[in-house]
Amino acid sequence: MVVDAVVLLSGGLDSATALFWAVRLKKWRCRALAFDYGQRHRRELRSAAAVARAAGVPLEVLRLSLPWGGSSLLAGGGRLPIRDERRIGRGPLPSTYVPARNTIFLSFALSWADAVGAGRIVIGANALDYSGYPDCRPAFLAAFERIARLGSRGGTEGRRSVRIEAPLLAMGKKEIVRLGTRLDVPFESTWSCYAGGRRPCGRCDSCRLRQKGFREAGVRDPALA
Amino acid sequence: MVVDAVVLLSGGLDSATALFWAVRLKKWRCRALAFDYGQRHRRELRSAAAVARAAGVPLEVLRLSLPWGGSSLLAGGGRLPIRDERRIGRGPLPSTYVPARNTIFLSFALSWADAVGAGRIVIGANALDYSGYPDCRPAFLAAFERIARLGSRGGTEGRRSVRIEAPLLAMGKKEIVRLGTRLDVPFESTWSCYAGGRRPCGRCDSCRLRQKGFREAGVRDPALA
Repeated sequence: MVVDAVVLLSGGLDSATALFWAVRLKKWRCRALAFDYGQRHRRELRSAAAVARAAGVPLEVLRLSLPWGGSSLLAGGGRLPIRDERRIGRGPLPSTYVPARNTIFLSFALSWADAVGAGRIVIGANALDYSGYPDCRPAFLAAFERIARLGSRGGTEGRRSVRIEAPLLAMGKKEIVRLGTRLDVPFESTWSCYAGGRRPCGRCDSCRLRQKGFREAGVRDPALA
Repeated sequence: MVVDAVVLLSGGLDSATALFWAVRLKKWRCRALAFDYGQRHRRELRSAAAVARAAGVPLEVLRLSLPWGGSSLLAGGGRLPIRDERRIGRGPLPSTYVPARNTIFLSFALSWADAVGAGRIVIGANALDYSGYPDCRPAFLAAFERIARLGSRGGTEGRRSVRIEAPLLAMGKKEIVRLGTRLDVPFESTWSCYAGGRRPCGRCDSCRLRQKGFREAGVRDPALA
């Protein structure tokens, strides 16, 4: 059972598009990995399952606990920030930053990839993310690739070590919506809202950026239908 | 509540000595972190609790699952290797290598440190480990320090970013036993055996290296009493 890539899938727009890129464009045999880590929008895991199913990719959901908290994105972590759209991505780290979350997610993906001999990890990190979150920056992803080379079986035994593929890295939301449209990503199944209510709140950073992306791409967001 | 360091604690000889080094020599206010990850020697967690108690340090035990397996150190992962002592640390990676385990452990430690503003992560990695396990090598630990700098709040907001402290890195088991003796590490509470029976098997790599260390240090191993 050959696995080419382990794909980090949250159930949001970006990771869904990254998964479809890997499956439809690259034709990689993929496994998807999602995390139940106490996020207030735990509802995104249903979206992850729907997106993985649509892509025909097996999904593993791991349960983690981060008892030290430190983020408004975690259940019980205080109020979500509601900010002026123009301020998103500026100034200090948003309170929705979850300490070292992507390092943790990538570590598990590396473990899976190393265990099955997969040569790639796919992550939906992009330009908008890394304007706010340090663990989405290109330099961070390059540093993690070094970790994969130095700290795994693959990198040690002379096999090619695991590469980090971030196909959306240079894109904004508009470009991501356009790529996703081209790849038939089931946008109606994706979930972006941080608040985790029954319907998107329309006010959190994630909802705002999504709305802006669909608006600028000239595409109707089917999740709001 | 100031925390200076998050210490990775397995319950074995090395991590116990590293914890006592941080608490007794460095006088750091520490938190200890252990993992219940499906290891066959799950019994080591009782030792981690006893060692943390003796050091007067709060311990957090996180439960992880690694459903992809890939290691004889995991319950259900096949037979433990029994090797000639001189061959330990030579040749290909031992089957006891757990894919990306230290990357995962360090990631959680980084999350905790970043959440509470601790400036250090302490790990008991040492020369013997990295002769066998890639994710104990000095270059790997340096690469992880870079991850901490690039991928965390601490490294981003101009605070000093988290440093990886590996006080045993240049030591063999003999030196570790000597240092532990000097620091009053409760060796009788530590657990090294991979097999996880009621008493140490005396035959696995970990038992052999421990025996050799105590023998060469001229110290009686109280865990065998």
